[in-house]
Amino acid sequence: MEQGGKAALGWAARDASGHLSPYSFSRRVPRDGDVTIKVLFCGLCHTDLHIIKNEWGNAMYPVVPGHEVVGVVTDVGPGVTKFVAGDTVGVGYFVDWCRSCESCGAGHENYCPGVVLASNGVDGDGATTQGGFSDVVVVDQGYVVRVPRSLPPDGAAPLLCAGVTVYSPMVEYGLNAPGKRLGVVGLGGLGHMAVKFAKAFGMAVTVISSSPGKREEAIGRLGADEFLVSRDPEQMKAAAGTMDGIIDTVSAWHPLAPLLELLKPMGQMVLVGVPSKPLELPAFAVCPSGKRVAGNGVGSVGDCQAMLDFAGEHGITADVEVVGMDYVNTAIERLERNDVRYRFVVDVAGSLLGAAA
Amino acid sequence: MEQGGKAALGWAARDASGHLSPYSFSRRVPRDGDVTIKVLFCGLCHTDLHIIKNEWGNAMYPVVPGHEVVGVVTDVGPGVTKFVAGDTVGVGYFVDWCRSCESCGAGHENYCPGVVLASNGVDGDGATTQGGFSDVVVVDQGYVVRVPRSLPPDGAAPLLCAGVTVYSPMVEYGLNAPGKRLGVVGLGGLGHMAVKFAKAFGMAVTVISSSPGKREEAIGRLGADEFLVSRDPEQMKAAAGTMDGIIDTVSAWHPLAPLLELLKPMGQMVLVGVPSKPLELPAFAVCPSGKRVAGNGVGSVGDCQAMLDFAGEHGITADVEVVGMDYVNTAIERLERNDVRYRFVVDVAGSLLGAAA
Repeated sequence: MEQGGKAALGWAARDASGHLSPYSFSRRVPRDGDVTIKVLFCGLCHTDLHIIKNEWGNAMYPVVPGHEVVGVVTDVGPGVTKFVAGDTVGVGYFVDWCRSCESCGAGHENYCPGVVLASNGVDGDGATTQGGFSDVVVVDQGYVVRVPRSLPPDGAAPLLCAGVTVYSPMVEYGLNAPGKRLGVVGLGGLGHMAVKFAKAFGMAVTVISSSPGKREEAIGRLGADEFLVSRDPEQMKAAAGTMDGIIDTVSAWHPLAPLLELLKPMGQMVLVGVPSKPLELPAFAVCPSGKRVAGNGVGSVGDCQAMLDFAGEHGITADVEVVGMDYVNTAIERLERNDVRYRFVVDVAGSLLGAAA
Repeated sequence: MEQGGKAALGWAARDASGHLSPYSFSRRVPRDGDVTIKVLFCGLCHTDLHIIKNEWGNAMYPVVPGHEVVGVVTDVGPGVTKFVAGDTVGVGYFVDWCRSCESCGAGHENYCPGVVLASNGVDGDGATTQGGFSDVVVVDQGYVVRVPRSLPPDGAAPLLCAGVTVYSPMVEYGLNAPGKRLGVVGLGGLGHMAVKFAKAFGMAVTVISSSPGKREEAIGRLGADEFLVSRDPEQMKAAAGTMDGIIDTVSAWHPLAPLLELLKPMGQMVLVGVPSKPLELPAFAVCPSGKRVAGNGVGSVGDCQAMLDFAGEHGITADVEVVGMDYVNTAIERLERNDVRYRFVVDVAGSLLGAAA
């Protein structure tokens, strides 16, 4: 990355073991419009695991992961109009975009071919970006969002990726209307957020899971209205044709046809998990019924701000387990076996220096 | 079927050979709202082949196929307000619907679970429906459409199924805007109609085919702007990210990922062909780019009337080979090997009696 900017301390992976350890580097010299942010909390997302272990074959070590940042503005450069020092802000999966393509022009800069990832990305100067598991980040104000004061910063951190990833397609596809019926497939970091947003939208929510043991969690704790065991053909058949939409958060391969059966005619399924093996889409499961399947990639900055504002009004946060920086490698191991309800968040400001000592 | 109505002469399949031969039966006693129609022309669709050969396992022999009917109203029952004797009208894939479900209420009665097919369907009385390869049909006025006088009835017949099947998703998904870029995959009965409608909408049209020999046909005769050979990776790569939408008419299994590559971010693919083997949908081909895949099943009566009106204004008809009823079995064989450009239409009124002699 560019030298000469603010000294930073992060935790980085050096190789495909994905093991994180302290790493000193420097942030870029602030540009016009840049905001310097002291990181308070940063969530741990499955995507971080894929990157630090080079599972996508594109890791540029050392890699400081982390793209669910909540922090406090410490400094603003010339040209910054949206923020002042002291503001509580968030930074998510993207930190820059081309500003000139059709997607950018339409306010969907998350689909800009030149979008720059917060971690393991390449910014306009050719420098590798480093993520939020560090004491400070420097980001263009256009990709910084305001975090409502009503939200605790630790529980708000996962909203910056997991939250907007499920919120934005719900709004895009009209799955945010009171009385509509939504299916949420998979109850993890993404799925539990989808249930919370859908309930706040006034929808009837059915959680669909391969684990019967999640019924109590889904209905009792998260307030879902119904629960279906995806491997129980009778339960699935009884619910056929009842749902306006489905948010499918599962990142392992799974059959789509039984889920598509749950949709009403012209119902909308949205994929937000990304299994590596191609899914199967039987044409007869969508053509005679006019059903739809869409992929979704995170959301735009506008989506993210709208989601945070909505979360602030409705008191929505992620269910988190807050850990210190020195626990992050254990958290990574536990996340790999889905042993967390539902998101690890690292208390970066409160533990980074002690952990590095 | 119900006895006691008008005597009818059709050509029916008696078994899975699919061979059609003369068949005498009677149409239902007209109900309130029923229109009696003398059939002039009836198109031959791939769906007819699937049904008469029992490839979908649901044939109720004898089966009179045909669901692309253009005819003249000869009689109207009490309660008919939309038509009078002498009107030129059309009947398509559906002839009745439940009138009470959510799809019917939303004007999408083509997705009504109780929709009644024009041929090999079961109507409200439990009678088997018989299609348009017969001298007369009796249909509720709600599923009869007006055929503009400017259209020749033979070339208009395939609009009733092939036409509306491609027109309705183009309108539904905004793929009818001047300047937008549409890909049409496959150049057959459906594909050639998609090219004609798209050009009339003012779109830039690219035909994508596995047959390089169709280039001249696509560009020279149908007026497409560009042509891509789907098996040529370099051509496909050069066109990546350029299309707003794709109408995929191919009914044989084929890979979706290279076609999805052609779409812009958030681009819409619509499947109107129905391969029997599940298609492959890689999540990475749709999630990071927000792309969408929808199935489409024909269209509503409203879509069909709007399509015919639009076709009338723009002089759009199918390219047809008009044949006599006694040629229908040969036409079926030729259609099976795609040896027709692009639709067989039987001159029912002009040949039925002679052929049955």
